[in-house]
Amino acid sequence: MAMTSFTPPERMLMGPGPSDIHERVRRAMAKPTIGHLDPEFIRLMDEIKGGLQQLFLTENELTMPVSGPGSAAQEATIVNMLEPGDKIVICINGVFGTRLRDMAQRAGAEVVTVEQTWGRAIDVDAVGATLRQHGDTKVLAFVHAETSTGALSDARALAALAHEHGALALADTVTSLGGVPVRVDDWGLDAVYSGTQKCLSCPPGLAPVTFGPRALGVLEKRKTPVQSWFLDVTALMSYWGSGNQRAYHHTAPVNALYGLHEALVMLHEEGLENVWQRHADVSAAFVAGMQALGMEPAVPESERVPELITVHIPDNVDEAAVRGALLDDHGIEIGAGLGPLAGKVWRIGLMGQSAEKGHMTRLLDALETELGKQGHKVEPGAARAAAERSLA
Amino acid sequence: MAMTSFTPPERMLMGPGPSDIHERVRRAMAKPTIGHLDPEFIRLMDEIKGGLQQLFLTENELTMPVSGPGSAAQEATIVNMLEPGDKIVICINGVFGTRLRDMAQRAGAEVVTVEQTWGRAIDVDAVGATLRQHGDTKVLAFVHAETSTGALSDARALAALAHEHGALALADTVTSLGGVPVRVDDWGLDAVYSGTQKCLSCPPGLAPVTFGPRALGVLEKRKTPVQSWFLDVTALMSYWGSGNQRAYHHTAPVNALYGLHEALVMLHEEGLENVWQRHADVSAAFVAGMQALGMEPAVPESERVPELITVHIPDNVDEAAVRGALLDDHGIEIGAGLGPLAGKVWRIGLMGQSAEKGHMTRLLDALETELGKQGHKVEPGAARAAAERSLA
Repeated sequence: MAMTSFTPPERMLMGPGPSDIHERVRRAMAKPTIGHLDPEFIRLMDEIKGGLQQLFLTENELTMPVSGPGSAAQEATIVNMLEPGDKIVICINGVFGTRLRDMAQRAGAEVVTVEQTWGRAIDVDAVGATLRQHGDTKVLAFVHAETSTGALSDARALAALAHEHGALALADTVTSLGGVPVRVDDWGLDAVYSGTQKCLSCPPGLAPVTFGPRALGVLEKRKTPVQSWFLDVTALMSYWGSGNQRAYHHTAPVNALYGLHEALVMLHEEGLENVWQRHADVSAAFVAGMQALGMEPAVPESERVPELITVHIPDNVDEAAVRGALLDDHGIEIGAGLGPLAGKVWRIGLMGQSAEKGHMTRLLDALETELGKQGHKVEPGAARAAAERSLA
Repeated sequence: MAMTSFTPPERMLMGPGPSDIHERVRRAMAKPTIGHLDPEFIRLMDEIKGGLQQLFLTENELTMPVSGPGSAAQEATIVNMLEPGDKIVICINGVFGTRLRDMAQRAGAEVVTVEQTWGRAIDVDAVGATLRQHGDTKVLAFVHAETSTGALSDARALAALAHEHGALALADTVTSLGGVPVRVDDWGLDAVYSGTQKCLSCPPGLAPVTFGPRALGVLEKRKTPVQSWFLDVTALMSYWGSGNQRAYHHTAPVNALYGLHEALVMLHEEGLENVWQRHADVSAAFVAGMQALGMEPAVPESERVPELITVHIPDNVDEAAVRGALLDDHGIEIGAGLGPLAGKVWRIGLMGQSAEKGHMTRLLDALETELGKQGHKVEPGAARAAAERSLA
């Protein structure tokens, strides 16, 4: 097979991730590679750790990016916190809850689940009842912002509940980190993972994690080795450790870390509170625009992830045709529904660099055009006008 | 902590990896990110698979890059091929053999080792004796080119021996792939992993793997789930599968894959045989230059990895001071010895883009200068002259 250089098509990424990447981050990744044991690289690692601590709002020493996608970091939290036979309560209200279950089962844990309708937040009372019933629970695991449905759960309340029952709080913040407040220390989240390709606007491939004092206690008291060598957090901690005393583990993805560093610099420049506000404002404007197009969000407002809006597809609209036309004719990527929501909703991401007025209004215009072609009644310009009023 | 953009220092990478990255590969990584389910991205994935098949000299359908560093791919081969209680014979002649043992133990396997002096090739006869003694061996695992010592083992003979005893051949080709012949189908290697940051001259963070028909048979007959969700090759195979029927697994590292694709295009342009020859020629010239400096390779010629030369440090030379001066004053990174070879050798990589005359002679010049400062007797210009004679 003859191979020639690849030129990606022009896209505007407004699906569930990856989001658009700023040119500064892309340029950073193209800088010359240096060795992963170079003193300058070690300085970079230290700055990344510091930047992630600021982002997670934590003083946890054990804060770093895993050298893999979000699912690698997800597995890292599970396999480090659990030993065979340990009991974990897992809240399931979407794809990523079911994945936590799969991983915990593979780790030999005893898994108890609390199921919730997809598209709704986790029911804190139901979780409380389950924890009362299972007093020997070691870990309560939940997804803060379910990427598969756009439902935001009350991470603070769930963490408090876990601690009340002597369990650790393990949280998925893949889609929430950098989009809405994630207060690791204030809320007492013990083992937390995220990803870089959502609100941080880096390419996929790195996954920030942070482990608090209770999680460190669990690591120290383990009776069995962590089943994964690659994801053994104690070894990773030595590699990402302090100063120049580092134990070689794997070879860190140097250029991807250049990109993450630059994205953290940009977050630092804008300020975390401003970043949250930008996501909230653009989201509210987008919802106003969608409503002007006669569409309603699938998740109730109080349970909604602002940066990932799930919208009901209007009757008589061919959802795949609209998604295909957005991609092919407008260069805009949005996401399909998953699981029980497949065919019923679209998932629209307003994350990171994609959380800005230009992206949002261009998508509303394109939706207006494509829904109109499908015979859906739309008033020309109404969606954009509603969005602009909301932002004003 | 205030964060500002990072500018890497100027380096010439001639250690055990990463090697220098061509500007084309770096530029490719800076191209705009597209979605990992985009039809154009799926085309890119197909081309990468094809390019890796050409590189591994295999028709194995199950050939792809793991979304992590070489150690993630190493663990993938181990946890997919082994179930608890399975017997594996592991050849250990350096760091990466010991890591295979660690991973296999964590997977619950019964581990038998065949140890060899660090810096020497694996003793095929000793392996044969061990396999005769352990007739129920499921997997024979070995490192083709030991990055920690620069010793090259006879992968073809070891694979034949494995099959003679009804075992699979699991091979580490991290430092050999793209530097010396790795003939997966001809030699019958069953489960093979590599990395991108050595002879392929990509940044670290991706790791090609290939699994042959016997390995697929093992996957199909498993009685227990693979302990890692992230590294479950059957699931990865669905994600990297044929055509547009893909099962979502993780989110692939889009921009890193742009880089790997471009590196494969460049390999394709140069031709694999030419790439091997370039590594061999530059290596021979470098060894001639080293000898003119009064230094000898630590590994016998017939067992030597050409692209990773381990050299004895001359008496009365402060090895750390020379390495430090090379980095600080010449911008050249070389590697230290590991394990029993620590303090006794340097590891010098002539891999990928670093396997060319300019890199090699600049390093010889710098070594001449720094060894001279240490009181080591050197004849000015002799090393470069010897290297140039070798290349002529």
